[in-house]
Amino acid sequence: MSLKLTVLGCHSATPRVNAHPTSQFLEIKNHHFLIDCGEGTQVQLRKYSIKFSKIKHIFISHLHGDHFFGLVGLVSTFRLLNRENELHVYGPKGIKEIITLQLKLSNSWTHYPLLFHELSSNKPELIFEDATVEVHTIPLNHRVYTNGFLFKEKLGERKLNMNKVLQYSEIETCDYQNLKNGRDFILKNGTLLKNNTLTLDPTPPKSYAFCSDTSYFPEIIPQIKNVTCLYHETTFLKDKESLATTTMHSTAEQAAKIAKEATVKQLIIGHYSGRYKNKEAFLNEATPIFKNTLLAEEGKVYTIN
Amino acid sequence: MSLKLTVLGCHSATPRVNAHPTSQFLEIKNHHFLIDCGEGTQVQLRKYSIKFSKIKHIFISHLHGDHFFGLVGLVSTFRLLNRENELHVYGPKGIKEIITLQLKLSNSWTHYPLLFHELSSNKPELIFEDATVEVHTIPLNHRVYTNGFLFKEKLGERKLNMNKVLQYSEIETCDYQNLKNGRDFILKNGTLLKNNTLTLDPTPPKSYAFCSDTSYFPEIIPQIKNVTCLYHETTFLKDKESLATTTMHSTAEQAAKIAKEATVKQLIIGHYSGRYKNKEAFLNEATPIFKNTLLAEEGKVYTIN
Repeated sequence: MSLKLTVLGCHSATPRVNAHPTSQFLEIKNHHFLIDCGEGTQVQLRKYSIKFSKIKHIFISHLHGDHFFGLVGLVSTFRLLNRENELHVYGPKGIKEIITLQLKLSNSWTHYPLLFHELSSNKPELIFEDATVEVHTIPLNHRVYTNGFLFKEKLGERKLNMNKVLQYSEIETCDYQNLKNGRDFILKNGTLLKNNTLTLDPTPPKSYAFCSDTSYFPEIIPQIKNVTCLYHETTFLKDKESLATTTMHSTAEQAAKIAKEATVKQLIIGHYSGRYKNKEAFLNEATPIFKNTLLAEEGKVYTIN
Repeated sequence: MSLKLTVLGCHSATPRVNAHPTSQFLEIKNHHFLIDCGEGTQVQLRKYSIKFSKIKHIFISHLHGDHFFGLVGLVSTFRLLNRENELHVYGPKGIKEIITLQLKLSNSWTHYPLLFHELSSNKPELIFEDATVEVHTIPLNHRVYTNGFLFKEKLGERKLNMNKVLQYSEIETCDYQNLKNGRDFILKNGTLLKNNTLTLDPTPPKSYAFCSDTSYFPEIIPQIKNVTCLYHETTFLKDKESLATTTMHSTAEQAAKIAKEATVKQLIIGHYSGRYKNKEAFLNEATPIFKNTLLAEEGKVYTIN
């Protein structure tokens, strides 16, 4: 199964008509994760017909408005829609106070369990894990405390090589799960059949690294090495590299360098400054360094294979 | 000069595509007032080409999300646009803490003076006044502390009746302002010319009362008596009158009754529940009781004469 990423907003700073701030919806192994939540995210979710009641986990990179001002509205809308399921919010320390203060003053406590996981470490942390998926923080370098997030599929079960399995009448259906789990099989005559003679390697796990916002920060490379897809912000082009440095953002060239050095399979860039009307210029700057680069576009769905 | 009202959003509860929560932009005597500020208001201001740097005063009726979740984003955008002018925010006690907490945690203090005027009285208060305009609170009856706002032009100067004035060569240009201010004129021969023989009454001052959200609350009638235009919420139709009572909202019939009893000149209704697809039904319920009723529509400009 592929990962499916829907870009809900990919612009920086102020929301404008048809230029929404950061938010992404990631489908991975039957999980529905929301990443960042700028103002208007709930309307974008509706616009692109995403059944947002499925979202159980929201990851907020940092507390600049273009990454979280839409969160309180979404939390409130879930309440108005009579949500009952737990909602987990992962974000910088302080996010709980921001949301709960507003719920308190509007006398609008949620009826569903709203659970905050506040982050403050400057080292990578495993913040979510179940049988199929892990999520780790990727500490970034921005004007306020900021994390990217690394979403990783776990290695799945081995696949039955049915051509081989069916050669042995002794192997019954009830043995299949043991084989998928990697166990060898011993025939009644004592012959050991090694597992890798009966099964095939599982599909390689896929991974998605979301990195926004950050200055050029090669320290992240070991952690994002070989990911299937990297989203890396590029607020500016090279013409504004000094402004990128001052504001602790990246240029398209810098994002491409990170992708190249980390040997990722695919790069998606976004978080464009409003000063650039022509987004192709970002692609023109990135692709000479890292060819497999795509522009983030609102409403576009990216299949990560 | 007319009052000019632009409706930016006129729906209740959750923002949806083409159905934005409450916000209005009022132009009165060279003032540019923003009334309520639901999520996405700053985008609506851009969509309808309103030069929103002109806004110096924002009035927030109450702390339910559909009336104020867009405020922090607008305050931040003003900062990013290098605003220097003062911004005054009038709203329920707590609004300062909500906004300043978010600015603090995002390390994004405004460079312009941001001044909060927190409200907590249950009696009408004069909250803004200058030479031309007054703004008063209209205490409403809702689930949380809520005010409407009454915007009133002050009575202007008397107008010169030039046909009369020019009959007296002794009256010179430098006397005109005294006449406009209501003073009589004494001719050299001792004859008293009463002011009202030389001047005409000033244009009657206009007024706009914004009432959202509230249950049916006739207590407001003395305060809004004879206003030029009343905006009164009508979340529901009569079929949901019991729900209106429970949630402390009004029906179209109730809004029309208030308009009729207050003998206002015009009624605008809005804050529609998302359950009603056909807004004409609100008009059909209100007009038999109060004929001069208009529907609030997003982006529509209302001239108040």
